[in-house]
Amino acid sequence: MKNKSITSRDEDFAQWYTDVVSAAHLASYTSVKGCIAIEPNGYAIWEKMQAILDKKFKELGHVNVQMPLLIPENLLKKESELVEGFAPEVAWVTEGGSKKLEERHCIRPTSETMFCDYYKDHVASYRDLPKLYNQWCNVLRWEKETRPFLRSREFLWQEGHTIHATEEEAKKETDQMMEVYKWFHHEILAIPSITGLKTEKEKFAGAEYTLTNEALMYNGVALQAGTSHYFGQKFSKAYDVKFLNKDNQQEYVYQTSWGTTTRMIGGLIMVHSDDYGLVLPPRIAPVQVIIIPIGTSDEVTNLVANYEYMLKEAGITVNVDYSEKSPGFKFAEAEVNGIPVRIEIGERDLKENKVTFVRRDTREKIVENKDLDVAKYVGDLLETIQKDMYNRAVERRDKLTFTAHNLDEMANILNTQPGFIHADWCGDQDCEVKIKEIKGCKSRCITDEPLIDGKCVCCGKEAKHHVIWGIQY
Amino acid sequence: MKNKSITSRDEDFAQWYTDVVSAAHLASYTSVKGCIAIEPNGYAIWEKMQAILDKKFKELGHVNVQMPLLIPENLLKKESELVEGFAPEVAWVTEGGSKKLEERHCIRPTSETMFCDYYKDHVASYRDLPKLYNQWCNVLRWEKETRPFLRSREFLWQEGHTIHATEEEAKKETDQMMEVYKWFHHEILAIPSITGLKTEKEKFAGAEYTLTNEALMYNGVALQAGTSHYFGQKFSKAYDVKFLNKDNQQEYVYQTSWGTTTRMIGGLIMVHSDDYGLVLPPRIAPVQVIIIPIGTSDEVTNLVANYEYMLKEAGITVNVDYSEKSPGFKFAEAEVNGIPVRIEIGERDLKENKVTFVRRDTREKIVENKDLDVAKYVGDLLETIQKDMYNRAVERRDKLTFTAHNLDEMANILNTQPGFIHADWCGDQDCEVKIKEIKGCKSRCITDEPLIDGKCVCCGKEAKHHVIWGIQY
Repeated sequence: MKNKSITSRDEDFAQWYTDVVSAAHLASYTSVKGCIAIEPNGYAIWEKMQAILDKKFKELGHVNVQMPLLIPENLLKKESELVEGFAPEVAWVTEGGSKKLEERHCIRPTSETMFCDYYKDHVASYRDLPKLYNQWCNVLRWEKETRPFLRSREFLWQEGHTIHATEEEAKKETDQMMEVYKWFHHEILAIPSITGLKTEKEKFAGAEYTLTNEALMYNGVALQAGTSHYFGQKFSKAYDVKFLNKDNQQEYVYQTSWGTTTRMIGGLIMVHSDDYGLVLPPRIAPVQVIIIPIGTSDEVTNLVANYEYMLKEAGITVNVDYSEKSPGFKFAEAEVNGIPVRIEIGERDLKENKVTFVRRDTREKIVENKDLDVAKYVGDLLETIQKDMYNRAVERRDKLTFTAHNLDEMANILNTQPGFIHADWCGDQDCEVKIKEIKGCKSRCITDEPLIDGKCVCCGKEAKHHVIWGIQY
Repeated sequence: MKNKSITSRDEDFAQWYTDVVSAAHLASYTSVKGCIAIEPNGYAIWEKMQAILDKKFKELGHVNVQMPLLIPENLLKKESELVEGFAPEVAWVTEGGSKKLEERHCIRPTSETMFCDYYKDHVASYRDLPKLYNQWCNVLRWEKETRPFLRSREFLWQEGHTIHATEEEAKKETDQMMEVYKWFHHEILAIPSITGLKTEKEKFAGAEYTLTNEALMYNGVALQAGTSHYFGQKFSKAYDVKFLNKDNQQEYVYQTSWGTTTRMIGGLIMVHSDDYGLVLPPRIAPVQVIIIPIGTSDEVTNLVANYEYMLKEAGITVNVDYSEKSPGFKFAEAEVNGIPVRIEIGERDLKENKVTFVRRDTREKIVENKDLDVAKYVGDLLETIQKDMYNRAVERRDKLTFTAHNLDEMANILNTQPGFIHADWCGDQDCEVKIKEIKGCKSRCITDEPLIDGKCVCCGKEAKHHVIWGIQY
């Protein structure tokens, strides 16, 4: 039965999204404009994202640190592009301890500044390099229009910051971390994101170049979900971060940063969920299986306990709903919360040795013999769901991927059904600006795929890049 | 050999402390006044604290959430005692997105306000209770004098916030969480902290009562490290958090909060460390064992690999120092960083089938046969170190625990060697104020131990409470 509190996805996508966020208890609006409260169900997803990414970062040699939340204005101003990029959207602390401060401090919109401030006193020679740091924290950007998870004034993220003795090594790091995000999207979130290079116009303020990971939502709107920046020596020159290289010469360090945020929770919803609520890929679901006992006979209770034990032993996250609500209510709750597999164990079914397994993704009910090897069966089922969800997302992405040879074709696509639009581009920012006039369409990334017809989609002149375009959140 | 960068603890305790923080790479000063950068070694301790506490909180049914960093002024002002307590030390955001804000927002000094703001829209009936929430986050208090970890303008902490349908249940929660902090200090940090009730003067602003966990540093100065507050209905009345109780009546919820912070890292240093650097109890040490190979012969390399494997299999955290530094340098580094056990494996020793184990706490070198059961041996050694460190801390605390019967005795103790001072008190705040005039000595907690002589240490009148007093960080 359709959840009455959820608007139909096809009817009103934006409303459907906020309905799912609310019905699945992922986040809630607060009295602070543009800031959300992340509720237990939402935060549990973030904790699982953190655990998986943190493990991967550490395997690659990164260590966690924590830099200050506040940045003094004079320090922020040292790198001019960064200031220009972020100054319009920062929040300023001007009073502290009942006094007006001599200098304003902004709340970090990102922490390149504070990392450079740290590096400059902690690096002397090439022997101190590389420094491979990461930080899990909150950041603040004074956005005008906000939407839970996708665009919030305050959000949670990780920001990796590394410095290296050579350009080559730093570029390798930039590539490597983009591969990590790609792996995370494809293998864990079941989101077939695409990766490539940002154009000069769209790159991070102060970066030499930015690699990006772009996901396509169910409605054809793109979501930037993970970027990796190569700074070269831009920041190290601005903040004077030098080291003695192997030739005994002073040299500025080569720097990177890379980050991804709680907006990935929004991405998960917009790629996979449906009119019945949240749908989570098993590998990122905080609870993978819920067992719902129907009745309280010994047979039911014993089998529930047995299944719970077997699944836990197999490393599967399982909850049992022992609450006093009705079975129907429990089914609906498990469904709206996106638990990948639901097991219904009832007295009547058990008389025929039967147990019911329900897939959340397809809502398919599968009746099985109660004596099956439950750990193996559910383990396989979870993997099947993960794979099927990924394949369906690929299918949807491909269905919403188009090619345009000129502006008319592009406008036609954007006005009919937006998606990823492949089109050649001359490299001129004027053409980018002109394209943006069509529904705010921006270059998502430059791919290394071959040119389509060699002509710029906008001006028709000789093309330099094969670019993927789209409307973004 | 004594670490030259570390001042002697007996000579200058304050300088010794900051030297250890710096030499062990736990934290570093930054360009932001009163705010530190938590370096990898320091943050790894915090991560281990988080993992252990978070697991315990969850076992007790708590779930994690995330409330906004900013609090609008009008919302903060609703609970008058809270405002009075915190307003003088908050930081105010007055500009955002290049505009002056219509209303100031403070950066959270604590989050009771935001939790109440959330509760009021999410609780309808007793069936929605209890809510057992916790939040890992940063908070900011505009302190005048700061010291790394112990008192920093920004710090990291966890703040638990719960609401209940009955006073009894909420009080039980307040007690339970104090027990958790006590367990954490005694069993994990090897710190024999004492617990008790805060006086009216020292309790949390807005609380009905506050339970506290107080640790004694090596120099006899106390550190408040974990408090648990019972609010009754004070906040729920101020913020209008009501529910329909079992009798179908509207009732205000009963509330608690409890928190502990990164200052516990400071506590670890000040209780256990020495002139050679950091000393960590094995159960909180991010790296428990370091193996240092001396030479590169096959015998050395094979045994190192074998030991590493055996220790990892046994669940012991072990690192091998394969770097190109000299063995002496590696020994000193392992020592200053506080790694509980160091294993030196050298070619010369191996010819006699010998391997050297070094305890960080006592700096004792133990030569053993290389063929011992290394996992069992090191496992036992780590437990012995943990136990010995706890016992030494108990001994030190007891040595610095005194009894005073009048103000002269109290002044004499405080002027000679501060510590925990047991003394009876009449319950009058004037006496508390008078006692504070002696070197800032405050009541640490009211214990439930019997009265000493029944007379107030200050005025000599009839005593109501047996109080433990001390100078604090």
